[in-house]
Amino acid sequence: MKSQNFTLEHLAQVVQGQCLGRPDSIFTGLASLEQAESCDIAFVNGEKYVEQALQSKAGALIVTAELQSLFSSQLNFIIVQNPYLAFATLTHVFEKKHTQRGIEATAQIHPSAIISESAYIGHYTVIGENCVVGDHTIIKSHVTIDDQVEIGKSCFIDSHVMLTGEAKIGDRVRIHSNTVIGGEGFGFAPYQGKWHRIVQLGSVIIGNDVRIGSNCSVDRGALDDTILENGVIIDNLVQIAHNVKVGANTAIAAKCGVAGSTTIGKNCVLAGGVGVVGHINIVDNVTITGMSMVTNNISEAGKYSSGTGLLTNSQWKRTVVRLRQLADVPLTQLTKKIDHMQSQIESLESTLKLRK
Amino acid sequence: MKSQNFTLEHLAQVVQGQCLGRPDSIFTGLASLEQAESCDIAFVNGEKYVEQALQSKAGALIVTAELQSLFSSQLNFIIVQNPYLAFATLTHVFEKKHTQRGIEATAQIHPSAIISESAYIGHYTVIGENCVVGDHTIIKSHVTIDDQVEIGKSCFIDSHVMLTGEAKIGDRVRIHSNTVIGGEGFGFAPYQGKWHRIVQLGSVIIGNDVRIGSNCSVDRGALDDTILENGVIIDNLVQIAHNVKVGANTAIAAKCGVAGSTTIGKNCVLAGGVGVVGHINIVDNVTITGMSMVTNNISEAGKYSSGTGLLTNSQWKRTVVRLRQLADVPLTQLTKKIDHMQSQIESLESTLKLRK
Amino acid sequence: MKSQNFTLEHLAQVVQGQCLGRPDSIFTGLASLEQAESCDIAFVNGEKYVEQALQSKAGALIVTAELQSLFSSQLNFIIVQNPYLAFATLTHVFEKKHTQRGIEATAQIHPSAIISESAYIGHYTVIGENCVVGDHTIIKSHVTIDDQVEIGKSCFIDSHVMLTGEAKIGDRVRIHSNTVIGGEGFGFAPYQGKWHRIVQLGSVIIGNDVRIGSNCSVDRGALDDTILENGVIIDNLVQIAHNVKVGANTAIAAKCGVAGSTTIGKNCVLAGGVGVVGHINIVDNVTITGMSMVTNNISEAGKYSSGTGLLTNSQWKRTVVRLRQLADVPLTQLTKKIDHMQSQIESLESTLKLRK
Repeated sequence: MKSQNFTLEHLAQVVQGQCLGRPDSIFTGLASLEQAESCDIAFVNGEKYVEQALQSKAGALIVTAELQSLFSSQLNFIIVQNPYLAFATLTHVFEKKHTQRGIEATAQIHPSAIISESAYIGHYTVIGENCVVGDHTIIKSHVTIDDQVEIGKSCFIDSHVMLTGEAKIGDRVRIHSNTVIGGEGFGFAPYQGKWHRIVQLGSVIIGNDVRIGSNCSVDRGALDDTILENGVIIDNLVQIAHNVKVGANTAIAAKCGVAGSTTIGKNCVLAGGVGVVGHINIVDNVTITGMSMVTNNISEAGKYSSGTGLLTNSQWKRTVVRLRQLADVPLTQLTKKIDHMQSQIESLESTLKLRK
Repeated sequence: MKSQNFTLEHLAQVVQGQCLGRPDSIFTGLASLEQAESCDIAFVNGEKYVEQALQSKAGALIVTAELQSLFSSQLNFIIVQNPYLAFATLTHVFEKKHTQRGIEATAQIHPSAIISESAYIGHYTVIGENCVVGDHTIIKSHVTIDDQVEIGKSCFIDSHVMLTGEAKIGDRVRIHSNTVIGGEGFGFAPYQGKWHRIVQLGSVIIGNDVRIGSNCSVDRGALDDTILENGVIIDNLVQIAHNVKVGANTAIAAKCGVAGSTTIGKNCVLAGGVGVVGHINIVDNVTITGMSMVTNNISEAGKYSSGTGLLTNSQWKRTVVRLRQLADVPLTQLTKKIDHMQSQIESLESTLKLRK
Repeated sequence: MKSQNFTLEHLAQVVQGQCLGRPDSIFTGLASLEQAESCDIAFVNGEKYVEQALQSKAGALIVTAELQSLFSSQLNFIIVQNPYLAFATLTHVFEKKHTQRGIEATAQIHPSAIISESAYIGHYTVIGENCVVGDHTIIKSHVTIDDQVEIGKSCFIDSHVMLTGEAKIGDRVRIHSNTVIGGEGFGFAPYQGKWHRIVQLGSVIIGNDVRIGSNCSVDRGALDDTILENGVIIDNLVQIAHNVKVGANTAIAAKCGVAGSTTIGKNCVLAGGVGVVGHINIVDNVTITGMSMVTNNISEAGKYSSGTGLLTNSQWKRTVVRLRQLADVPLTQLTKKIDHMQSQIESLESTLKLRK
């Protein structure tokens, strides 16, 4: 990754920061404070990293003006208001770009598909009837794109992705390896002790700037569509069931599962391993902490949690025994009863004292 | 999906229902009450949807005889006993059928494999030694079928599926994209601080009418086989470990995991995210609610649950503190003690009254 | 799997055991006590399996010297100290070996890649720039190996695996189907209500003798690398986020998730479905039981758990109500208060007695 060279001045310009030190110093990579060498640039994400930064071998630091004064003036700096954001921006400078264009000879493209001339289609990728692939979109090897799927501009679809169910995908969407978009939803009508398959006729609509990790499943809707709005970001191994709707800019961490027909608002955060039952609504700006189970509508913004926290195994075993008893212990009544008994005792005591 | 036309009369016949209204009305799709237009047919799944149905633009409604009387007689109806089942049946009418037969030129088929002439084998699919593919089975692109795997009739195997471990698959089985059947079970013998791999020599046996979603892993057995009986339905991202046995018509929702050598009975339901430990037995007709952890045998049919439910984060934090204390609070003793103290106080009170 | 024949004597030699009975007896397979036939060899894993072994039709038993005396001397035996380990060793004898070498004509190998002549590259596998594949490594069909990935000797990479992010993989590593190594980590900087992608520039380093199951995601690091040390074993559907470090010989069961920048020590065991939050440290020799949530550093070796255990649904519903009350019940104070009241009552009682 360190094959490119950039001057400090150029990098400062990219992040609209102030360059301090030797503007013509050459940098070949971004690195963490710990691993950085003199050819690397690193960032100081707040006061608590100053100590580490003072030990770092990085050739330049991205810092705020306030923090810069804590360092030797001999060093190179890029001064910005938000070092983390500047770092995020610079990662794009050091990204290894995919430059290939055109269709590999081994790809199988249906004659009715429309592929932009600026797109890239990798080895062995199979594209079906009436598909559309937009400008500058990169589709890597072994991707399967079923009939009627449409993909916008500047997307990145990694190897072994499956796009089916007539999915419609916006611009600048990134989908990572082995993810399945538009697979058949889990719809069955129980009748006479057996499950009768309900063919899923809805689709999946994915907005712009959506990011989906690897090994995810986003199912097509039963009749209406499954919808991921603009700016949704999803980590790996996530399940989005049929007819789920996820609001704009919501983030869903790894291993979450959202059951069918649930609607999640905008700007929500589901931490890792969260499960959400079907047919509920979650309003905007809700955060669910890791491994929580959402079983009801959430109608107020805020932070929600479930789980017992971690215990030593021996304590946990005793706690589980107590939890089995808990159902039959009227906790609030008990507290009241104790308070009442306390006042009875006090009354008895004063009666006795009076008689003395 | 709306390229096919059917008369109301024809659709009523398919579901053995009564046609009310204009039998020659043409319908091009099924839709939800909310999204339906005049060319669509929708269904009313019980009284609570009547209000919505009255607002719907659907050109025809599937209803029970009781509900039909609530609507204007000007409309078109299909009268049935079970509208949801009728809807499930009609989805098959509107399904886009896969009509291709034969083997794509790019597929790699071992000469010893036996492929039915009515089967379809997609692009780049690889089929090994002594495999069998039955009549009318559809195998899409990029599937890998390892040596000795046998697949029955009228199956549907979607792209990027891996069938290995000499799996034997029944008739009318559907396996969705990127699922792995017959992968090596997680078997290691610990010895002198290291893990020694146990080669898995068992296989996977899948009955008829089984459905497995996308991104699932069903491992081959260590010595004996992993077994999914007839009619089992499994959602996405599910783990079935080596030597698990799942009874007929059991449903397993997304993100469940069943550990090794566990037996699950018939007609069970595991809701989303359930985990079942290894080497236990669950009897028939057991329902486990979402994200529960099953740590012991279940020997009685019924519904089981675990978890704390969802709390606001601030309440949850306090609850977790209490849960850490709970192990050391003798709840049932405490309740008895309080009752005993109550009677002691009453006795004291009456003693004092007597003396007045 | 039963196409190979071995004498009892040969099998005893393989496990350095003592052969008792007819050394020239021929065995064609390993089997469980339950399913074994006379051509099979089975093992007795401790006293509790003796009953079952007495009923078994197995033609030979692997037992300890102590247990052997419980069986008829007419039988065939292999006497060893550790029958389970001997069984593990013998599974390798009965394993169907992959014997093909060379590169399938349909594989796409970049001219700059270095592939050992003793390696096997399967159909449709795509290998990018500057990749290295070591001696005796087997790479099955439909694998994608992106630029700069290096794979050691005697590895096994199953179909549909994706190796990217410039991953470096040691010797004797086994990676099962549809797993993604080196996918982009979930790194986004929030700014003005949107998520700004942080290009992930780190890599993944995998040691020797590592085993990763199917449908796993192991992400590349943001700047530094994600690291799996020697001897780590991972089951199916596991998420390892960017910059996680897993210590040597740690075992991670199916459906676990480890969030970003967390360090797990050596010789740990994460049972199925465990979740670990980001940026924490877990020391060596820690066991986490199934579906537990680790939210803080663990600084002492030992066994840890969370969760409520399983309840009947009706009891669970009542328990959840109590858990909502629990936050406001001062449990330890309550216990003290009750003890204090008890002594007050006793004091009252003795006062009254004195006055009699």
